[in-house]
Amino acid sequence: MKKDPLILLVNDDGIFSPGLRFLIQICKNIGRVCVVAPDKEQSGRSHAITVDQQISFKKIESSELYSEYSCSGTPVDCVKLAINKLLNERPALCISGINHGANYSISTLYSATVHAAMEGTIEGIPSIAISHLNYSNKIDMSSYDKFLSLFIKNILENNIDRGVTLNMNIPNLSYEDIKGLRVCRQGKGKWIEKIISKDNAQECIITGHFEAEEYEDDTDIWALENSFISVVPIKNDMTDYEYIENNKSIEL
Amino acid sequence: MKKDPLILLVNDDGIFSPGLRFLIQICKNIGRVCVVAPDKEQSGRSHAITVDQQISFKKIESSELYSEYSCSGTPVDCVKLAINKLLNERPALCISGINHGANYSISTLYSATVHAAMEGTIEGIPSIAISHLNYSNKIDMSSYDKFLSLFIKNILENNIDRGVTLNMNIPNLSYEDIKGLRVCRQGKGKWIEKIISKDNAQECIITGHFEAEEYEDDTDIWALENSFISVVPIKNDMTDYEYIENNKSIEL
Repeated sequence: MKKDPLILLVNDDGIFSPGLRFLIQICKNIGRVCVVAPDKEQSGRSHAITVDQQISFKKIESSELYSEYSCSGTPVDCVKLAINKLLNERPALCISGINHGANYSISTLYSATVHAAMEGTIEGIPSIAISHLNYSNKIDMSSYDKFLSLFIKNILENNIDRGVTLNMNIPNLSYEDIKGLRVCRQGKGKWIEKIISKDNAQECIITGHFEAEEYEDDTDIWALENSFISVVPIKNDMTDYEYIENNKSIEL
Repeated sequence: MKKDPLILLVNDDGIFSPGLRFLIQICKNIGRVCVVAPDKEQSGRSHAITVDQQISFKKIESSELYSEYSCSGTPVDCVKLAINKLLNERPALCISGINHGANYSISTLYSATVHAAMEGTIEGIPSIAISHLNYSNKIDMSSYDKFLSLFIKNILENNIDRGVTLNMNIPNLSYEDIKGLRVCRQGKGKWIEKIISKDNAQECIITGHFEAEEYEDDTDIWALENSFISVVPIKNDMTDYEYIENNKSIEL
């Protein structure tokens, strides 16, 4: 008998995050599930890996249908550990999230939720990052239950092009108020930094707020501001091909 | 009188790295220099930032022509700190490196050398990442003195398109044996992981080796294997536009 598909789950908010717990419940109804998630919060770690240092991992639960591990490494470490050590078969799908907080526009670059999914893609596994625009751990995501279940089943049936990661962001709305889903591009924006430090102290916290730099209707920025779920397909190739066209040769 | 251009230097090998020290000497002959670099090695930290936690910084030297700070944060934190706190003017150029080790192909994604430069670009500053393919701290880079000096002056005079970061990799050869410089694309490759752990121990080190997946002559992989310096222009927009063209609508 054919086994149910194996889904690998990871996140950056840590193993106890409610967003991850909600995703686990959805995925348990679809297939077999393996969770490998950081033992503490790892927000903003981007594609960071642990180089030349030990990482530890801990088995929390392990059965044929469901297994769960925590790991001291980064979210990308978690994916590498899952694929190359903890799992005996390749997952059919890797999902990172559900993150408590936005990961669109330029935040795509800083987000470990997104980059953990990108690592899944690098390993050849169809991968999705899912983030909810509400930063609170107490947000009730339950209205998205059916939608996410259908979306995940759809991806499992149809796959994603090799090399592409889907970066989904969900507006801070109940599902009933969502207008639809838009496949869009990463809109231009930036974080305006604020450095918080005591007088002359050589210690500080870097914080800030996001500012959109465009509102074109093909961007994730527009989609989310207009009550759509945004899905931006992202790739590992960072080359700026337009620049190459215009600067074929630089003299040595 | 017009002041000499201000160059911001950062790296991921840490403030005492010989590659950074070599770059400081070159840049001191071109303009005013400010160094803000991690107080310890931060290789593989990608675009990681420190979220909701204090970072500390320490003034090592400070004069009109040259200043130097170490910082407990990530390489991207160093750039944010420099631009938003330590400097009173915007640098004309940001250079990250010179890294001891390769940062081409898929390693572009993991590299904090590359991502520190990308953060400079996000801040609106022309930015370059420079890496040398030899991983040893003892490598003699002095034969590249004149070339790098000319390259940096050229960038200062002609600028880089807004939004582009130049990712330069230098083969493990003396400058006399270099055939030229190629503007190229990020070639396809991946790291094959090796997990080193003791029997049953829940601790491990994730290591591995790089494997190229193509050798087309327009890639950084080809350039470096054929004795060229590679320069890949990279951008912050991670969107896969080809995927969007083919998947305009996904049903909700």
